[in-house]
Amino acid sequence: MEKDEKKQLTKENERWDDLMRCGYQIIQNPDYFCFGMDAVLLSGFARVSEGETVLDLGTGNGIIPILLAAKTEGKQFIGLEIQKALLDMAKRSVIFNKLENRVSFVCGDIKEISNSFSPAKFDVVTTNPPYMMAEHGIKNENPSISIARHEIKCNLEDIIRASSYALKPKGRLYMVHRPFRLVEIFATMQKFQIEPKKMRLIYPYKDKEPNMVLIEGIKGAKSRISVESPLIVYEEKKKYTKEIIDIYGF
Amino acid sequence: MEKDEKKQLTKENERWDDLMRCGYQIIQNPDYFCFGMDAVLLSGFARVSEGETVLDLGTGNGIIPILLAAKTEGKQFIGLEIQKALLDMAKRSVIFNKLENRVSFVCGDIKEISNSFSPAKFDVVTTNPPYMMAEHGIKNENPSISIARHEIKCNLEDIIRASSYALKPKGRLYMVHRPFRLVEIFATMQKFQIEPKKMRLIYPYKDKEPNMVLIEGIKGAKSRISVESPLIVYEEKKKYTKEIIDIYGF
Repeated sequence: MEKDEKKQLTKENERWDDLMRCGYQIIQNPDYFCFGMDAVLLSGFARVSEGETVLDLGTGNGIIPILLAAKTEGKQFIGLEIQKALLDMAKRSVIFNKLENRVSFVCGDIKEISNSFSPAKFDVVTTNPPYMMAEHGIKNENPSISIARHEIKCNLEDIIRASSYALKPKGRLYMVHRPFRLVEIFATMQKFQIEPKKMRLIYPYKDKEPNMVLIEGIKGAKSRISVESPLIVYEEKKKYTKEIIDIYGF
Repeated sequence: MEKDEKKQLTKENERWDDLMRCGYQIIQNPDYFCFGMDAVLLSGFARVSEGETVLDLGTGNGIIPILLAAKTEGKQFIGLEIQKALLDMAKRSVIFNKLENRVSFVCGDIKEISNSFSPAKFDVVTTNPPYMMAEHGIKNENPSISIARHEIKCNLEDIIRASSYALKPKGRLYMVHRPFRLVEIFATMQKFQIEPKKMRLIYPYKDKEPNMVLIEGIKGAKSRISVESPLIVYEEKKKYTKEIIDIYGF
């Protein structure tokens, strides 16, 4: 039966990836953006308490809401995404995982978030935004992948403004990004009354520069940040550290 | 001869510490603030090129200018300090190390830096400022030590304002501080046109939270920061990592 259901839910070029949590699986399509380690690490960093509501900005194929539904006692997870084809995948993954009561999606523009949601509605916002400025770097010829990687449809300020709009007072924003934009991230959060309160740098090896940063911001909090222990990905070549294995749930 | 000279240069309660560089030694007095690992790591992080001029804000017993004179080809190092007793020690250390041509000191207030120096005069500013806000934490009964640890005589904003005043365009500020004030440090640097460009976190152990951060800011630069590899202090209990041993020059 699972096999038949899966077949019905699957379209051309799509594959199912095992999320190693609760038996959940997710549809991916290499013609679109596929999730990376960033999304998995963000889902391990974000703190969601029982009964809380979570908005994921730029949710793509829904990886973050689905992982958080597996890992936390959050009540409601909503993913906002502008690309219909990705949302179509996300919705079918939710059906397969029987998460319809907890995970849902809205097609909409982060820049016009007030068209989709009333203000101060969420306890938590998560986001794995495009890292590269629109004008920087080599763009993928595939427009869907470019939109996920480059600030074409929205930029850092748009995302943080939308987060601030969506969060309740003292609500938490969880973001994964590239360290080279750290100063801009802090400044933009502060501009929209979200105080950076926790940060963790992800170093591929213990003697290498970090390539990702996880940040928790709290709306309306006082200035003081906790920098956490380094998250190191590889013990040696191709061998994950114990902490990474725990986050993935291998 | 060295022994006689040393005796003449030494006052009550003072000791001489070996700096492990060029045979240099420094006077310390436990009744005043003694330098810690912070100053040594800052001297390893600061980039000073041949012929450059360097101002050290709140120089204490002159540890940073003396270490930088040993480690770099900088032309002139000036330490600004408000506490006369510390400057008196600093000056005698300079005489002992025969550094009079490269290292000198000015007694003055960081908050009134324009009384001591004309603007845009230095290629580099270094500072190991008080970490704690004036109203926070337990203060040492010794006022000299309190002034070094707590923002009694000047605060972070005073120091960054003075740095910006002293630096030439594209001049570099090197600061060591506590990670919990990172957001405030970035915001204050930007307020005074010093862009944070490089950062290194110092973790006591590879699985512990960092307790120091080294920051390079460049006056008038564009926003983009390089976060460096983690600097880990201990391999295991009481055993320094190779990198720390190299910086100390043991």
